[in-house]
Amino acid sequence: MEEHEEFEYQPKSVREIFIEMKNIAELMVDLAYASILFGDKEIAEEVLDLEERMDLLNYHLTTHAVLAARNVREAEQVTAILQMANAIEDISNAAGDLAKMVLEGLELHPVIKEAIMESEEIIGKIVVSPDSVLVGRTLGELKLATNTGVWIIAVKRGRRWIFGPDKDFRIRANDVLIGKGTHTSVEHLREIARGVIRVVGNEKT
Amino acid sequence: MEEHEEFEYQPKSVREIFIEMKNIAELMVDLAYASILFGDKEIAEEVLDLEERMDLLNYHLTTHAVLAARNVREAEQVTAILQMANAIEDISNAAGDLAKMVLEGLELHPVIKEAIMESEEIIGKIVVSPDSVLVGRTLGELKLATNTGVWIIAVKRGRRWIFGPDKDFRIRANDVLIGKGTHTSVEHLREIARGVIRVVGNEKT
Repeated sequence: MEEHEEFEYQPKSVREIFIEMKNIAELMVDLAYASILFGDKEIAEEVLDLEERMDLLNYHLTTHAVLAARNVREAEQVTAILQMANAIEDISNAAGDLAKMVLEGLELHPVIKEAIMESEEIIGKIVVSPDSVLVGRTLGELKLATNTGVWIIAVKRGRRWIFGPDKDFRIRANDVLIGKGTHTSVEHLREIARGVIRVVGNEKT
Repeated sequence: MEEHEEFEYQPKSVREIFIEMKNIAELMVDLAYASILFGDKEIAEEVLDLEERMDLLNYHLTTHAVLAARNVREAEQVTAILQMANAIEDISNAAGDLAKMVLEGLELHPVIKEAIMESEEIIGKIVVSPDSVLVGRTLGELKLATNTGVWIIAVKRGRRWIFGPDKDFRIRANDVLIGKGTHTSVEHLREIARGVIRVVGNEKT
């Protein structure tokens, strides 16, 4: 994140800031595990950038929320929002701590990667082959989280990373998707990405 | 969790404890949001029970890990495990803080529920109708996370809760599933649970 963003950033409402905070915290945890799994410092750096953005969002949220309270009842409701925002920020700080382990170049015990690979939700790299049905389609069209159970948390395109790609993100041949899901669902998406399976979800080819 | 478990608990390895800690932290965050969304104190209590279990697991992990280090290199690797375990415990503590908001009976601003309902991963209640294809089948057979993109984090059966049901859990008519997924995937599973859609994933009827 660049310096000037702090001044340009104009949040629209407490609700929008809050939703963004929740989404960012979840993305940060996923990316932190991915950075550890792949030993990737660029992903870890992104986690720390998101941590800064989270601080900024929490600051804006607090200012907006405090202004919004005009009586005791509203003040109590606002307090609950701030408590929840702090819990969300704690989660994002924990994700930041995980990312720092990668940036500090700590030698990681094999058990660490095993835990990430063998827990219920795992993270996997999925390489998109040029003849996959994924090529040329957006994440919004493909609805991968719904159709395959895999959430795409990041994409590596050539040497560039795209983090938390949105529904308008269009997949290209040779993209490397970083996905979160069950073992089975990640394997299933790999077959689609390799071009072996030609349908995504219930759609017709 | 009952008192005596603390003494009976015999973890098998650092790896197993670590995987359980990661799974529990994820379940706790999901359940904490669910407790807020539904204003449900029983779910919130479970989050606090899991927080106690997490403390115990972290204690066992530390003891095991410290014993395992026999030289400087191993000590460094063990330090990384303990750092990661602490970050995971921070996440579980944040989930505990969220659950406490429910137990303290804080009046929650509408924005809080909106944030949980409108973020990328949402939580929903899914009622299983007696004529749904889900009835009588286990979560392991159904592979709902893979086939529908919905993770079942809890089930209400009559007045009883089952939290973090495993693959052997068999769905019964009138179970209320608490699922996490995209809007679309939760809606899709609702159609299956209502008996409107008769297939789960790519299987044949």
